[in-house]
Amino acid sequence: MQYPRPIAKLIEGFTRLPGIGPKTASRLAFHVLDMKEDDVLEFAKALVHAKRDLTYCSQCHNITDTDPCQICEDKHRDRTTICVVQESRDLIAMEKMREYTGLYHVLHGAISPMDGIGPEDIKIAELIKRLQDDESVKEVIVATNPTIEGEATAMYISRLIKPTGIKVTRLAHGLPVGGDLEYADEVTLSKAIEGRREL
Amino acid sequence: MQYPRPIAKLIEGFTRLPGIGPKTASRLAFHVLDMKEDDVLEFAKALVHAKRDLTYCSQCHNITDTDPCQICEDKHRDRTTICVVQESRDLIAMEKMREYTGLYHVLHGAISPMDGIGPEDIKIAELIKRLQDDESVKEVIVATNPTIEGEATAMYISRLIKPTGIKVTRLAHGLPVGGDLEYADEVTLSKAIEGRREL
Repeated sequence: MQYPRPIAKLIEGFTRLPGIGPKTASRLAFHVLDMKEDDVLEFAKALVHAKRDLTYCSQCHNITDTDPCQICEDKHRDRTTICVVQESRDLIAMEKMREYTGLYHVLHGAISPMDGIGPEDIKIAELIKRLQDDESVKEVIVATNPTIEGEATAMYISRLIKPTGIKVTRLAHGLPVGGDLEYADEVTLSKAIEGRREL
Repeated sequence: MQYPRPIAKLIEGFTRLPGIGPKTASRLAFHVLDMKEDDVLEFAKALVHAKRDLTYCSQCHNITDTDPCQICEDKHRDRTTICVVQESRDLIAMEKMREYTGLYHVLHGAISPMDGIGPEDIKIAELIKRLQDDESVKEVIVATNPTIEGEATAMYISRLIKPTGIKVTRLAHGLPVGGDLEYADEVTLSKAIEGRREL
């Protein structure tokens, strides 16, 4: 006996999500059968609404349900600084810190020749155009990930922007707070030494 | 900035599923945004259909989209044997083996006084009634899990059925095939010794 068709389809649906294999998918599907019908309906609606109602902000390319997004609309934010991140999730991480009050620019990826992703595949041209259109920007903080792809993207962006006279900065590398020196990798340690500060 | 409402609701929906924390939920939700709209719609439909179209077989209590279920309907199956399992997933595991051709009975749980689950909370009464109504059953194989709860349930069922003269058997305990003696726990080893067979 196979799974009855409705549950087989649901398992298949779950399997398409990242990091969910057949075992987890079947566990989740059986859990759905035990949920209240209203909760299942609400979840199904949330899926469709998220997909349908969310777009990308025409200015910063963050996901949003209004265009321009809340952040770009916010009159209290510092319009002289743009923080460039790879993904909307990174933006959320920055916002959770509650210290940065400037604007953002979401690239939706990083340059990665290995995966065939070039500068034209991410929102770099849009960033440059934004800087040309809006002369109030004084600093671009490149907060791409501290990975090979993120670094390459940061270098690329900085070379494009520097000639315009706008300041380009990069987040500091070093030991994570609460981390253990013993377990830090060599590259992080060497960056931490390189970026050491006087006390 | 918080997540836009549609994605916040979707993340909340994912968080309700077992084993999915806020980080995974947000990763899954963002993945949904990148999926094709048709795929999202199909997944949402699969959720609702699975919940709406599946019921439990009135005979064996397995999940099914027809009543009685495929297995209970199947004329080629051996109607003299009933295999008692805790969950529908266990039934699927048995079926994957492709060696058992009898019928099933899904208990939907196991007796667990610690969790307040007594014999009346699972489908034991239904099993007894089924045996009374159908005199062709000659053997009941109790395939509840080899855990304290599963064993207690097996003992309870066997005491109820034995007086009727129907044979009650239990799956063998022992070393899993492909397992390593070195890593077997003491209880499994002692069961394996106890159940040793002549070669």
